[in-house]
Amino acid sequence: MTYCVGLLLKDGLVMICDTRTNAGVDNVASFRKLHMVEEPGERVIALASSGNLSITQSIVSLLMEGVPDPETDTVETLATVPTMFKAAQLVGRAVREIYRVDGPSMEQHNARFDVSLILGGQIKGRRLRMFMIYAAGNFIEATPDTPFLQIGEHKYGKPILDRAVKYNTDLYDALKVGLISVDSTMRSNLAVGLPLDLMILRRDAMQTELTYRIEQGEPYFEDLRQRWSEALRATHQAIPKPPYVKKA
Amino acid sequence: MTYCVGLLLKDGLVMICDTRTNAGVDNVASFRKLHMVEEPGERVIALASSGNLSITQSIVSLLMEGVPDPETDTVETLATVPTMFKAAQLVGRAVREIYRVDGPSMEQHNARFDVSLILGGQIKGRRLRMFMIYAAGNFIEATPDTPFLQIGEHKYGKPILDRAVKYNTDLYDALKVGLISVDSTMRSNLAVGLPLDLMILRRDAMQTELTYRIEQGEPYFEDLRQRWSEALRATHQAIPKPPYVKKA
Repeated sequence: MTYCVGLLLKDGLVMICDTRTNAGVDNVASFRKLHMVEEPGERVIALASSGNLSITQSIVSLLMEGVPDPETDTVETLATVPTMFKAAQLVGRAVREIYRVDGPSMEQHNARFDVSLILGGQIKGRRLRMFMIYAAGNFIEATPDTPFLQIGEHKYGKPILDRAVKYNTDLYDALKVGLISVDSTMRSNLAVGLPLDLMILRRDAMQTELTYRIEQGEPYFEDLRQRWSEALRATHQAIPKPPYVKKA
Repeated sequence: MTYCVGLLLKDGLVMICDTRTNAGVDNVASFRKLHMVEEPGERVIALASSGNLSITQSIVSLLMEGVPDPETDTVETLATVPTMFKAAQLVGRAVREIYRVDGPSMEQHNARFDVSLILGGQIKGRRLRMFMIYAAGNFIEATPDTPFLQIGEHKYGKPILDRAVKYNTDLYDALKVGLISVDSTMRSNLAVGLPLDLMILRRDAMQTELTYRIEQGEPYFEDLRQRWSEALRATHQAIPKPPYVKKA
């Protein structure tokens, strides 16, 4: 399993990914799922992936090596695409190419072609944008009305995002809420786990403001988890008990 | 969709169900999903259902009319079974009987035979027990290690249960936490909605201590939702921002 969340806000982009993978509960490992293409001053693109690890790794490799563009007869990578929309289309083409190569054999083995990706970033002179790409290679884009996208185990961590993240939320507050969202997910699903990779890209800065890995025992995240847990306990304890009365 | 949660605690049983059903997002209705069989002093059995409404209603009807027992050549209902384990087996047989009748035709129409149920209660002289019955008619039982069971849209509301409910939790505190869990679910999934049906059965009381329906605008639940929302906001605002520093 996986949990990645991307937040596209007024001030910029925040992305957080866990690193846990599992092939069955008896085979758990750690793989980076947040991939960066950064050329300071020119482009910053982040790609978060969820799904079958063989598929997601092949897609990332293909995007780095180059995906042939049948229309222009050229080979494009995330380092060469001229716009973020073209970058999303490129990721979609990479997904379809890996499906073409591996999909039929996987289906023969009843292995689902399971992949979804979040692509966020900005190319010089263009807008900061964020997309979610599906297994069919189609995609949607985040907008101010719904400024976050999630892939993988998205449900446990969604309630706090629904409540606490707005388009105007400060980048570091959004990172904080995102980490609370990841904490809730990790508590309810063992297949999501530390370390966490995160990045912050301020709008129009054209270079990452922060890239960071939270390892086991990292003091801030430990403190956040403990504060959140204690505050939830205090909160539900402070709510009065239901006044509903016994039947006569 | 549906969300029902059952909590089997040291002091007794709490069950909460929403009432929303939908056949597509353009066809939303309200149906009772928490069914009671109560003979004070003798037995109290609660059955919560989730899944395709035609299946769950047929199962409940069959359980009230009577399910033939091939081994004894008699007809049993929830009002006649001698133990809660036998009641769970009876529900399982009813699920299999409705699958036998309706399953193949539904599959021809690509409609999944989708059902799960929570059965809780106590029969005089026997233990208070709670079971979850699956679409195949098999079932699991709640134990002190994991004192709650959920059916339907279970993920949004699970984090607070994981954190706040223990076997020793007071019945009305458990009801409160259960209502917070339902609130989180309703906020994130429109297919779960008011009114809510709830019941409390104190261990060995042999009659329900509380049966109640929370309608839209009910003051306690409105207050709980508002307090929870405000406290979450205050809590995440009170947590310090991440100290992670910009790259040099």
